[in-house]
Amino acid sequence: MVDDIDTLVAVTPEAFREERNIDARILHEVTEIDLKGRRLQVRQLDGAKKEWWEPFDQLMIATGALPIKPAVPGADAQGIYGVNTLESGVAVRTVLDQQRPKRGVIVGGGYIGLEMAEALVRRGMEVSLVEQAPQVMNTLDPDMGALVSEALMAVGVQLYREESLQGFEVKNGRVEGVVTDQRTLPADIVILGMGVRPHTALAKRAGIPLGERGAIVVDERQQTEMEGVWAGGDCGQSFHLVSRKPIHIALATVANKQGKVAGINISGGSATFPGVVGTAVSKICAVEVARTGLQEREIERLGWKYVGERIESSTRVEYYPGAGEITVKVLAEKGSGRLLGGQIVGYEGAAKRIDILATALHGGMTVQEMVYLDLSYAPPYSPVWDPVLIAARQVEKLV
Amino acid sequence: MVDDIDTLVAVTPEAFREERNIDARILHEVTEIDLKGRRLQVRQLDGAKKEWWEPFDQLMIATGALPIKPAVPGADAQGIYGVNTLESGVAVRTVLDQQRPKRGVIVGGGYIGLEMAEALVRRGMEVSLVEQAPQVMNTLDPDMGALVSEALMAVGVQLYREESLQGFEVKNGRVEGVVTDQRTLPADIVILGMGVRPHTALAKRAGIPLGERGAIVVDERQQTEMEGVWAGGDCGQSFHLVSRKPIHIALATVANKQGKVAGINISGGSATFPGVVGTAVSKICAVEVARTGLQEREIERLGWKYVGERIESSTRVEYYPGAGEITVKVLAEKGSGRLLGGQIVGYEGAAKRIDILATALHGGMTVQEMVYLDLSYAPPYSPVWDPVLIAARQVEKLV
Repeated sequence: MVDDIDTLVAVTPEAFREERNIDARILHEVTEIDLKGRRLQVRQLDGAKKEWWEPFDQLMIATGALPIKPAVPGADAQGIYGVNTLESGVAVRTVLDQQRPKRGVIVGGGYIGLEMAEALVRRGMEVSLVEQAPQVMNTLDPDMGALVSEALMAVGVQLYREESLQGFEVKNGRVEGVVTDQRTLPADIVILGMGVRPHTALAKRAGIPLGERGAIVVDERQQTEMEGVWAGGDCGQSFHLVSRKPIHIALATVANKQGKVAGINISGGSATFPGVVGTAVSKICAVEVARTGLQEREIERLGWKYVGERIESSTRVEYYPGAGEITVKVLAEKGSGRLLGGQIVGYEGAAKRIDILATALHGGMTVQEMVYLDLSYAPPYSPVWDPVLIAARQVEKLV
Repeated sequence: MVDDIDTLVAVTPEAFREERNIDARILHEVTEIDLKGRRLQVRQLDGAKKEWWEPFDQLMIATGALPIKPAVPGADAQGIYGVNTLESGVAVRTVLDQQRPKRGVIVGGGYIGLEMAEALVRRGMEVSLVEQAPQVMNTLDPDMGALVSEALMAVGVQLYREESLQGFEVKNGRVEGVVTDQRTLPADIVILGMGVRPHTALAKRAGIPLGERGAIVVDERQQTEMEGVWAGGDCGQSFHLVSRKPIHIALATVANKQGKVAGINISGGSATFPGVVGTAVSKICAVEVARTGLQEREIERLGWKYVGERIESSTRVEYYPGAGEITVKVLAEKGSGRLLGGQIVGYEGAAKRIDILATALHGGMTVQEMVYLDLSYAPPYSPVWDPVLIAARQVEKLV
């Protein structure tokens, strides 16, 4: 869909240098952080491969996340790809274009797994997806995830749920099959979509405290527990405004805001990042998927009592051309009615409605308050009662 | 676009009777309310045309609104239509289908005027629109209304702004032209889109207090100032949660919620309607238009100090196919930063974002808080910073 990879590069090193007066060095690796000496060990990855110590006053750690690689036999074989960087995406595309593999197996049914499943299906490949949970899209409750599983099967993906990866069949160093606890799936190419973990080995060696899932602990100003050392994005922790607990969320929208806050503080200003509510969206062919707040599993883990309801409605007034199905689930605290989370699966125009629920979570609203939200209505956009309001109305009755 | 008119009838009298046990009588007019005697004078409009007094315990007034008819010469001529009921819509469609008029003139550039302009343009007619304000869509600030004016001209509508209606040229009882203070526009059909006024003559005669623009005064429970007499929808007042003043808003989504609240209270339950924030959306060909909260004119009338900014962005990530322009304007209170209102004009996916601002208004949020809203992001849906957040960020700097 995007022809020129360069359009995906937000800022080039040249633009950093010329427009922003930032000396951005690519192909340089920091191999050690010396906190006491306020310096970094840096190694050139190309050319002379020099190594030296570079001094710093303030340090920002933005090392991102790494795709989780399974510790199973054959995981290092050729033909197995994680898709987490622009380069790895280009690598997969090159293989697809030049080797024209016929059978693709995706391991993991999260955002990356589903988006890659769609990409392979669109190329006319036979696509299988292995997911160890009962449904794909594990950040949704299983009843909502089931709708995504159905959508995936409807576009022709062979779905193997509640199956766990045991290893890979390898011949001459190349992957030939994916072995689960139930079967072996022949594969010309394998895509790993098993999630990511914070890329924090370097920070850990330097003694910078890590928290949730090994992410760097930061305060509201994005400062680590070490004075003058800052972190943000996929390598750092976030504060969840609903659970009031730390969480690791590896999403661009969070990273971008945290980077802004860290930058303001490092350059002498003052800004705070209040936290996240766990909003995310995805698109699998025509099906839009969105979530925010806490899902049932997370609420149960906190030991909170909750009520929830799932409703079906229409993205537009039903008589209006282009109206599509939408399913909305809303979760609220039993007793108080405080909104805890929401999930949406549906067709065109469905997903962006999650922002209503996200904003309501930021505002600490109850479902009783939400019922009378003055949301926009006209036949091309919504039924008279927006599906989000219909869901809130049903949950209100259970509070 | 909608072939069968019956699909637009939400509930038939038969369904009211059989499914809801409600004796809904159409073609009956209430000609008098006797509050002391707790009875209504009712007249049959067809058949025997009987007239009698009907007793009541609780009375709900839902008489809606009437299109504003200009007090100018020729206004009663044939060929001049208001479009405010299903019947009047059908009448216009019948004329368009059967008489195939070539030149249509729309008087008034509000929602109805613009939607009718689109409808006539789609039929290949020559369409002119006369608006007395500097821009169409007067519920937006003029700078945002200008974008809608441009969109209207781009689809071929001849737009005459800052011109006021003086009368109609009539021949043999039929309209032949629209006379403004600057010119005469030949017309085979004229559509009036001059807004509506509450249809409250009956309530007024009965002594039920009226307020803003002649709308019936109601409390939070939708009760009028008369015990056991209730009102809601286009004939009644609403409470504006931002201005904290009464307002008359004739929109389905408000009417529907007020009807629910009145119904609960009349039948012995307890519900309150907290108020509106003035959200509305429309669509003119491909251009989506939305507004919520207060516009500059309204804020100035309140004597409040405010700041505002208009930004341009993209409905999706710019490299993503289908990305379109979106302009967002955000207004906030000077000093406090309290969100006061927002307006959006743009392409597919633009308008429904108004719900983020509407929800933030309900939550009493500041633009400082809004900047870090955890809104959804994925390339098919939004840039990394949603356009609403970009606008909030710009306004934050001015607070």
